Amino acid sequence: MALATLVHPTGYHVASWLHPQAQADASTSIEYYQRVAQTAERGLFDLFFIADTPAARTSNLTAFSRMPLFMNVFEPVTLLSALSGATRHIGLGGTASTSFSEPYNIARQFASLDHLSHGRAAWNVVTSANDFAAKNFGLDRLPAHGDRYARAREFVQVVRQLWDSWEDDAFIRDRAQGLFFDPAKQHAVAHEGAHFRVNGALNIARPPQGRPVIIQAGASDTGRELAAETAEVVFASESTIEDGIGFYRDLKGRMPRHGRDPDQLKVLAGLPVLVAASRQEAEDMHAELQALIHPDVGRSRLAMDLEADLSGLDLDQPIPEERIPKSANFHQAYFNHIVQMIRVEKLTLRQLYLRYERGNKTIRGTAREVADQMQAWFEAGACDGFMLMFNLLPRDMEAFVDLVVPELQRRGLMRSLYEGRTLRENLGLIRPPHPRAAG
Amino acid sequence: MALATLVHPTGYHVASWLHPQAQADASTSIEYYQRVAQTAERGLFDLFFIADTPAARTSNLTAFSRMPLFMNVFEPVTLLSALSGATRHIGLGGTASTSFSEPYNIARQFASLDHLSHGRAAWNVVTSANDFAAKNFGLDRLPAHGDRYARAREFVQVVRQLWDSWEDDAFIRDRAQGLFFDPAKQHAVAHEGAHFRVNGALNIARPPQGRPVIIQAGASDTGRELAAETAEVVFASESTIEDGIGFYRDLKGRMPRHGRDPDQLKVLAGLPVLVAASRQEAEDMHAELQALIHPDVGRSRLAMDLEADLSGLDLDQPIPEERIPKSANFHQAYFNHIVQMIRVEKLTLRQLYLRYERGNKTIRGTAREVADQMQAWFEAGACDGFMLMFNLLPRDMEAFVDLVVPELQRRGLMRSLYEGRTLRENLGLIRPPHPRAAG
Ligand SMILES: Cc1cc2nc3c(=O)[nH]c(=O)nc-3n(C[C@H](O)[C@H](O)[C@H](O)COP(=O)(O)O)c2cc1C
Ligand SMILES: Cc1cc2nc3c(=O)[nH]c(=O)nc-3n(C[C@H](O)[C@H](O)[C@H](O)COP(=O)(O)O)c2cc1C
Repeated sequence: MALATLVHPTGYHVASWLHPQAQADASTSIEYYQRVAQTAERGLFDLFFIADTPAARTSNLTAFSRMPLFMNVFEPVTLLSALSGATRHIGLGGTASTSFSEPYNIARQFASLDHLSHGRAAWNVVTSANDFAAKNFGLDRLPAHGDRYARAREFVQVVRQLWDSWEDDAFIRDRAQGLFFDPAKQHAVAHEGAHFRVNGALNIARPPQGRPVIIQAGASDTGRELAAETAEVVFASESTIEDGIGFYRDLKGRMPRHGRDPDQLKVLAGLPVLVAASRQEAEDMHAELQALIHPDVGRSRLAMDLEADLSGLDLDQPIPEERIPKSANFHQAYFNHIVQMIRVEKLTLRQLYLRYERGNKTIRGTAREVADQMQAWFEAGACDGFMLMFNLLPRDMEAFVDLVVPELQRRGLMRSLYEGRTLRENLGLIRPPHPRAAG
Repeated sequence: MALATLVHPTGYHVASWLHPQAQADASTSIEYYQRVAQTAERGLFDLFFIADTPAARTSNLTAFSRMPLFMNVFEPVTLLSALSGATRHIGLGGTASTSFSEPYNIARQFASLDHLSHGRAAWNVVTSANDFAAKNFGLDRLPAHGDRYARAREFVQVVRQLWDSWEDDAFIRDRAQGLFFDPAKQHAVAHEGAHFRVNGALNIARPPQGRPVIIQAGASDTGRELAAETAEVVFASESTIEDGIGFYRDLKGRMPRHGRDPDQLKVLAGLPVLVAASRQEAEDMHAELQALIHPDVGRSRLAMDLEADLSGLDLDQPIPEERIPKSANFHQAYFNHIVQMIRVEKLTLRQLYLRYERGNKTIRGTAREVADQMQAWFEAGACDGFMLMFNLLPRDMEAFVDLVVPELQRRGLMRSLYEGRTLRENLGLIRPPHPRAAG
């Protein structure tokens, strides 16, 4: 099974930075990130992954000063480039928004990262999901969901063509003839679309992987359709095996219509996981962090994902129906999950924020219990692997690597060394042949 | 005196890649760049610098396959991020175009590089100078010179404000109070200009240098004016001491009008340099590379910088007057220099391409001869230091570090160790205080 890990500075838990073991300056310490990446590599993970949004909040700052997510972080492409020298095998995945950048710049930076890392780059294609980002790029608010995805689709098409600007063997460096490249092996892009006009060739050789791996995490119908067409790794966020199977089948079922082999897309189930010597210890470790969540933080996080104003509400009452918007523009899966918890489970605001984990269900327990659950998901056909999230870093990742990885290896579910030379090879993805290549 | 070096993969000489000692795959080998950067750091250079243009040529490919400049190179920000881990002291400068990117993305990546490198980032602000770049970003041709500079000026203003989004001590990480940052120390940008609307804050703490160092190399009046207003390092390309003094005085003379202290801008004279045990040996080494220049390459390079069509012309005749354009849109200094060589020196096309070195005059000789010339420029007030260019890498940089650096140290013109912790400190540039900081 494939393993990726989503790395937020001090951990995935919103209160992790308050924990005594958290490193205060983690978010801008390269030495810290090196240590975390090396731990993930020691655990033979396929992919080290950095989420992103190109914005800091500028309103409701008091609440955000208590949950500093993305307020002070390295930019992913620079961070991953720096990490390429501190690691040798693990894939380096980063998020870049199609809404606020240009295809040529993105294609170039990820191609460059792929060369720097000798074939370990992956790009998480997102359309972004907050108005703060839009305001940094000349807009008043985020474009509508459908428009963002239309741009994203065209963006990915152009980027893939740019990666194919040169055939694999274009740079012959023939000193006798005095030819650095074979002019016949450049294939300039000539793209005139609704969102972009790009006429030119990338100024870097075809990447070691042919094309860096494309990741997506869209949950909406439009998002799934784009993933079925273009993604090679998808992060899922279903919380039950049944829903996981449903998502898996739905997504892979869409691929043949795009002429794609379902095996060429790996679904990684989002998995917040906490392993300890005993179940109780794991529960206690989780409770310790939950107790650090400030009510303002609980309220703001819910408000953000519900796209609602929750100010002034009693923490010990349910959210009144009239505060719930009709539909979501940002993360539809998060939105639906919260609405369900309000309507079906009838939770109070406080219960809700303590239980809500962005659609994921944390697995807490011993190595055997954690491995059991992972095996169950994997063997049921609910995923091809997992996107692991750890409450507190590096502590919880180290425990996973030391305790769960050996258990998975014993069960024959995980490698005992990196067999592949590139991320694609480790994930079992083919290297896309150049469209003009003979044969 | 300050020393920077401009690093093209196999060297500054257009035929360097053909030399038997050149590393064939240098342009996409991070191990190669690490070695070159470490050599520069061994030489106690202030700055390792990467030029850039966001485009590969797509026409006249046969000629360009003989002079593969920028056809297959790492993207600078990713390359410098990777080099940050392989070096400890040397500044890391890279080019990014204001014509084809967004202020938020550039501000963020250079701030991130500054954090990754612990205060060693520098941004070379260019407006780009070829139509191939424009075509990659939705345009048919490069905007006019004045329009590019107007956008560049606004771009730099916004980037500097974004770097000041947070006061230096904004991120207090106060666990007792549960405050990661002090909300009063965020100062969101509210910019509404002719080219950009940016309303938001950068999502990374103020860089270690306060602001990454700003480099420029514009030679035109508009370029100089922007440099006088915003640059902290300027690459000059005058070829005589007299012209150097003129440029130096002109540029620094413009600064007080912008309320700036002339000492806060370092003029680095472009210096292609070749040192060997004897003068004759240096001349021979240069001649060896000159002999490798293919006539097509000589012709194309001149055509590019003269912005003229030189096809069909006899190599052993002067360029006819009617082929010379009235004025330049790309690099005015290069253009003027070529025109002068045609009109005043009456050179043939072949003589011209063999002599033309983009405005620079190579110094070739022994360590003492090279040091003499550098000292003469420096003491005459023609520069604050040099932007060194080496015909063939790493060979010629190694010779410089082994032979010329000790000679400069003996003369008291160069440090014997890095005294500063940041690029600014090494260059003698102040760390800009935050505009809102008290005191
Ligand atoms: C594991 C995971 C990581 C994600 N990372 C990012 C991210 O870095 N940036 C971002 O804007 N969205 C991120 N998302 C959100 C998705 O990309 C997507 O925007 C969201 O699920 C809404 O998709 P939809 O509009 O198709 O429903 C992530 C989602 C998941 C499950
Ligand atoms: C040492 C040096 C390095 C330069 N590097 C770049 C570069 O990387 N990219 C670029 O587009 N122009 C580069 N230039 C060109 C200048 O930035 C500038 O565009 C050119 O001199 C024309 O300026 P002007 O239009 O003000 O005359 C460089 C110039 C010099 C002297």
